[in-house]
Amino acid sequence: MGPLRWQVAAAAAVGLALAMEALLPVLRWLLAARASLELCLFAFSSPQLGRAVQLLHQRGVRVRVVTDCDYMALNGSQIGLLRKAGIQVRHDQDLGYMHHKFAIVDKKVLITGSLNWTTQAIQNNRENVLIMEDEEYVKLFLEEFERIWEEFNPA
Amino acid sequence: MGPLRWQVAAAAAVGLALAMEALLPVLRWLLAARASLELCLFAFSSPQLGRAVQLLHQRGVRVRVVTDCDYMALNGSQIGLLRKAGIQVRHDQDLGYMHHKFAIVDKKVLITGSLNWTTQAIQNNRENVLIMEDEEYVKLFLEEFERIWEEFNPA
Ligand SMILES: [Zn+2]
Ligand SMILES: [Zn+2]
Repeated sequence: MGPLRWQVAAAAAVGLALAMEALLPVLRWLLAARASLELCLFAFSSPQLGRAVQLLHQRGVRVRVVTDCDYMALNGSQIGLLRKAGIQVRHDQDLGYMHHKFAIVDKKVLITGSLNWTTQAIQNNRENVLIMEDEEYVKLFLEEFERIWEEFNPA
Repeated sequence: MGPLRWQVAAAAAVGLALAMEALLPVLRWLLAARASLELCLFAFSSPQLGRAVQLLHQRGVRVRVVTDCDYMALNGSQIGLLRKAGIQVRHDQDLGYMHHKFAIVDKKVLITGSLNWTTQAIQNNRENVLIMEDEEYVKLFLEEFERIWEEFNPA
């Protein structure tokens, strides 16, 4: 186990750690959502993160998810559970990967990095997660989310 | 093909684009290296990026690479070529992934995001790459690099 290095400033929280140590800060920032949550995730199998997202949905937070078709069909994916709970999910239909791993909380906080939201990654990998309250970054990633949201519209 | 969105400010360049569109800015910032380049890459198979790194090594830039054992053995990996060229490479020996995908140029510029340095990712995926001239972020990622560099020391 390596040392945990979290720096939290007024404007930014930056995490670099074994992935297991990133889970708690990510959960904490997610659960602070009051109005909206955008998730743009290549892979999503972590039950803890899945429960947190369902809890937010139950609380009335507007949750939207985009994900990759290739991973969502795999065993252990949380995507089916999110859909059953009534959460909106869209996915690509092509061979390329939608390889992002980011979340936007209340259009104010960006969580991004190398970490896929999988139990495997959280338990075993060396990863980075950046948690940023930064208008410019949030705007760029939100624009990317909206582009993908429209592009993956099945209608 | 989606639109290219690069914003370059005095302090930060932020990229969010189809991965192919990220290659050029990444190459440009890499090739600006004069003294040092740290690479912390889960996967490295892009010949363009491989050539750029070799060119920097030939120019006298101190290049250090850490990578994941599971990927470096695969067909098309650039790691063998870098080693043959005399570049220092270290890798993990365990089952977990060293899943970072970051570079630090001259201890001043951080390049990080979701993008693996593979032809597959560059040609087909939807990815994000952040290019940041930010002392705090560079320091945190450089500390992570040095921890991994020591941990993966075969001696
Ligand atoms: Zn796909
Ligand atoms: Zn490994």
